Amino acid sequence: VSRILLTLRYDGTGYCGWQVQPNGITVQQRMQDAIEAVTGIRSGLTGCSRTDAGVHANMFCCTFDTESPIRGNKLASALNAHLPRDIAVAECREVSQEFHPRYDAAGKRYVYRIWNAPQRNPFLDKYALHIRHSLDTTMMNTAAADAVGRHDFAAFCAAGSSVDDTVRTMQDCHIERDGDIVNIIAQADGFLYNMVRILAGTLVEIGSHRRLADSIAIALKSKNREDAGYTAPAHALVLDKVYYE
Amino acid sequence: VSRILLTLRYDGTGYCGWQVQPNGITVQQRMQDAIEAVTGIRSGLTGCSRTDAGVHANMFCCTFDTESPIRGNKLASALNAHLPRDIAVAECREVSQEFHPRYDAAGKRYVYRIWNAPQRNPFLDKYALHIRHSLDTTMMNTAAADAVGRHDFAAFCAAGSSVDDTVRTMQDCHIERDGDIVNIIAQADGFLYNMVRILAGTLVEIGSHRRLADSIAIALKSKNREDAGYTAPAHALVLDKVYYE
Repeated sequence: VSRILLTLRYDGTGYCGWQVQPNGITVQQRMQDAIEAVTGIRSGLTGCSRTDAGVHANMFCCTFDTESPIRGNKLASALNAHLPRDIAVAECREVSQEFHPRYDAAGKRYVYRIWNAPQRNPFLDKYALHIRHSLDTTMMNTAAADAVGRHDFAAFCAAGSSVDDTVRTMQDCHIERDGDIVNIIAQADGFLYNMVRILAGTLVEIGSHRRLADSIAIALKSKNREDAGYTAPAHALVLDKVYYE
Repeated sequence: VSRILLTLRYDGTGYCGWQVQPNGITVQQRMQDAIEAVTGIRSGLTGCSRTDAGVHANMFCCTFDTESPIRGNKLASALNAHLPRDIAVAECREVSQEFHPRYDAAGKRYVYRIWNAPQRNPFLDKYALHIRHSLDTTMMNTAAADAVGRHDFAAFCAAGSSVDDTVRTMQDCHIERDGDIVNIIAQADGFLYNMVRILAGTLVEIGSHRRLADSIAIALKSKNREDAGYTAPAHALVLDKVYYE
């Protein structure tokens, strides 16, 4: 039995996130269908994270164990032939039996994309939040810097989440403007449920001058969800990269 | 009566190009519907170019004459409310009665986008040509440089086209690689029917080592369509920018 690491790209618009669930189609389910079609056996799949419904991935890592001898681009091509157009395997490689796509990830990088112009953009409709007024990215960057480092992110976790340890290390958090596109980049060793979306919502409110630049520092200290901003919509979020040692 | 210049963005996937025609829906038709809904009058619309079926636009300019007093972002928002999701007005402004979006254009910049990786990309499926083998962009750039300048582009014009003068000035023609994306940039004072797509097809053949780097120079000299490459598909082409003095 060999362990195969698959690197995927997917447009999450039509999916209820990664993880198999009773109501609604997930990316994991589509992957299991494709693996079964190619290898003849329905395998369990371990993902690098549970992404929310509607969230996209430029790079999502998952593993499965198989006795099939197919490898590399041949396996990727065979799987892609059985996957819908909105999911694709970019790479396949064999890894050791000890490798775990979630526990072994040193960091994950998310990008929250904003189309910041008075009128909508047909190409970014499905992939960006549309904010009509000009965002103050200087103030957003000042606030984002407060999130960097090891903090208790309890204020940036969806209510009702049952996680014990809410301490995470934010490795990078900054804002980049490219013309009318504003990207919020957040890289951490792990993320709580809705953490990037609440961080993005808070930063959008700061950039709109509806919230002070020290709001993030205050929410990190109070650990109170009410001190952070709204949960920005899922369709503008993409898991951009997963880092392994 | 005032002349209004509209700057549009559209995803051309679902359209038979810009110009109104008997069979199939065009962008011009959708624009005329929206203008009629907003102003109450069905106006003629003059476009900056006839784009082919399936070609996209990041910036497409067109004008119409109206007695309506609505201007600027108010007009853009009103039109966008009546347009389908794949077409949007980015800007509106009043121009002089002498302004003509095609004749007054000093140049147009097209980008032909290639996804150059072994496996497909769900995000670029509708917007890029998928070439699995690695393209030799150094050789493509050498060949592209031969297209720059004032030339008779007869070899790069679809057979059956009834244009008299096939001389155009190519202001810029080069290739940019950004990871697995290869963009062919072509900017000229005007383009013949299918000119960018034949140029792109020729450059893809050169980058695949199926055609020599001097092919473009030879085709420009012979003026023979058979000396140029295939007509690359429309869905990967975008009218990126129109330049006015």
